[in-house]
Amino acid sequence: MGLDFHLLNTSSTGGRRAALHLPHQTVQTPVFMPVGTAGSVKAVAQNVLESLNAEIILGNTYHLYLRPGHEAIGRMGGLHKFISWPRGLLTDSGGFQVFSLSQLRKVSDEGVQFRSHLDGSSHFFTPEHSMDVQIALGADICMAFDECTEYPAERTRAEESLRLTIAWAERSLHHFRAHQHEVAWHAELPGRSQSLFGIVQGGMYRDLRRQSAERLVEMDQAGSGFDGYAIGGLSVGEPRDLTLEMIAEVLPLLPANKPRYVMGVGYPDEIEQYARLGLDMMDCVLPTRAARHGLLFTSEGRLNIKGKKYAEDQGPPDPACDCMVCRRYSRAYLRHLMQASEPLSATLNTIHNLAYYLGIMQRVRGSLHSNA
Amino acid sequence: MGLDFHLLNTSSTGGRRAALHLPHQTVQTPVFMPVGTAGSVKAVAQNVLESLNAEIILGNTYHLYLRPGHEAIGRMGGLHKFISWPRGLLTDSGGFQVFSLSQLRKVSDEGVQFRSHLDGSSHFFTPEHSMDVQIALGADICMAFDECTEYPAERTRAEESLRLTIAWAERSLHHFRAHQHEVAWHAELPGRSQSLFGIVQGGMYRDLRRQSAERLVEMDQAGSGFDGYAIGGLSVGEPRDLTLEMIAEVLPLLPANKPRYVMGVGYPDEIEQYARLGLDMMDCVLPTRAARHGLLFTSEGRLNIKGKKYAEDQGPPDPACDCMVCRRYSRAYLRHLMQASEPLSATLNTIHNLAYYLGIMQRVRGSLHSNA
Repeated sequence: MGLDFHLLNTSSTGGRRAALHLPHQTVQTPVFMPVGTAGSVKAVAQNVLESLNAEIILGNTYHLYLRPGHEAIGRMGGLHKFISWPRGLLTDSGGFQVFSLSQLRKVSDEGVQFRSHLDGSSHFFTPEHSMDVQIALGADICMAFDECTEYPAERTRAEESLRLTIAWAERSLHHFRAHQHEVAWHAELPGRSQSLFGIVQGGMYRDLRRQSAERLVEMDQAGSGFDGYAIGGLSVGEPRDLTLEMIAEVLPLLPANKPRYVMGVGYPDEIEQYARLGLDMMDCVLPTRAARHGLLFTSEGRLNIKGKKYAEDQGPPDPACDCMVCRRYSRAYLRHLMQASEPLSATLNTIHNLAYYLGIMQRVRGSLHSNA
Repeated sequence: MGLDFHLLNTSSTGGRRAALHLPHQTVQTPVFMPVGTAGSVKAVAQNVLESLNAEIILGNTYHLYLRPGHEAIGRMGGLHKFISWPRGLLTDSGGFQVFSLSQLRKVSDEGVQFRSHLDGSSHFFTPEHSMDVQIALGADICMAFDECTEYPAERTRAEESLRLTIAWAERSLHHFRAHQHEVAWHAELPGRSQSLFGIVQGGMYRDLRRQSAERLVEMDQAGSGFDGYAIGGLSVGEPRDLTLEMIAEVLPLLPANKPRYVMGVGYPDEIEQYARLGLDMMDCVLPTRAARHGLLFTSEGRLNIKGKKYAEDQGPPDPACDCMVCRRYSRAYLRHLMQASEPLSATLNTIHNLAYYLGIMQRVRGSLHSNA
């Protein structure tokens, strides 16, 4: 069995409170997943993530494939063991990073030829190869190989991109089902297996989004379809009401008994909003990346800790937050660490931002639970 | 009262087991003090230092004076409060960094004119100013303003340097005693005050070292002299037997009832050796700086974690170590973090190296305790 998605409650707005049983962790949803690009949530140690109550984190297939390599990770028992993270793990398909980071891409029906952003070496990714890499990494949840349509995109471009994504989803699913038993922890966790999510694309065209969702759901024949559904290609520069419009279009088409994941969003108010609409999983680099640039998310709004006005501010970063950073350190100290380029700066800022994001979801879960 | 140095045991080799009662912490000696240059032991959070059982850390006067400024720190209640470190703190005099980091130095009997390595701004440090800065920082232990003689140095140069250092020690002591009540926590810790250590210099000339120690000890008239003695200007490039020779020359001249501190050393075997000879305190950037370059100190010797041979080594960094890094992570993962320039690399490497250094001292303390 891949995952067991146990719905506990559904609110009047569609928000769902559920327990997502994965091979390595039961995840309480709605959940925010910190991004651990290259096998590390940047600047934060695994025990700190645990104390923040992070139940599932992301790994990026593109980065891990290039360095240290999926085969090495596979030989070492998979990503959980390699990074010493016993809880939930999700890997993306590599598609998004191939399109956003690599150079000299050449897309064909077969797959994508690209050059590594690290050393310029040439690589070819197909849906089948993405599955092989993700099976070697051994995350609890894998993602189908897709093309993320850029924004803005002409309709013909979005149609062509969606055609590829649909074909690749089918090939991903087929290859994944044929090889998922090869995961390194197959014998260790008997009866458990990785799960595969399909990804809805379609640019900013409502009918293409609808078509994308319908085609993915159709692939669920005799129960061997996708284990969950993601909405990708959002938060790529479009106005927020357009994001919401695409989500609203797709959401009713996705099966209620499977987890729904909106990829790469978002700001604190966005993740709360989407969770209340019925999205179960979210990830975003925003809290971690912004932290490294000194941007803190707080109950009083965004706070740029570099500001001179904080030079002697002895108050906590967020007076309403009880994370280990807000309990111990002042704004003045966090500002100083940033000014002095101290590595502790990224660590403390990131811990607070993650605590803030995870805290939002905890609050939302609480209200979804009590609100029948 | 500044400090209370309570000798518990002295071994046949001169090694001393003692409890050093400081205003903010009782420190078990011999002790290794991690260096927290700009108000942070680089890449390691304060709660982690506590869990490593670090009882006292260093701050660098030169760095903190330039940024964020001693006056700002003083207004915020001193360095303990500013960095949220309730345990022991020691600040150096700024002298060593002025000589090693700043540009366009001009030394006179009065003091040192120098330009900041940060922005080229011009500053003038005198013994009196160093004391004012260190009183504003409010560490438990301050250091007299000295000139660290470079290595190698001609005898005339070493003599001239020592002449300055002796005159500056006297002025440091005088000014410190007149102003030490100005420390920010004066009212908070009634009856407690900062301590001041004198620094033995004299280059690599035994008689100059002896003269330096004798002159410092002479300043202890009517009990208002230095609270402890440091040996500075070692580990500056000289062969190790010369270091040892200078230490051996000075040690018998220092009062047995006051703490002795050898500055800026050293390798693991060195700190153990000096502790067993009767030195009570040591500090060095080596474990923290080397960690950031991937050099780990282990029970099996030095380990360069960048090595390709560790790419799939699933063993702990040091099989004999039970620090939080060795208990959880593999050599392969630490190597990967370094290869991928992940900020967690510096954090984990540093935690291990500090655990190793602090562990050495804990072991030495244990053996000094039982060995009457």
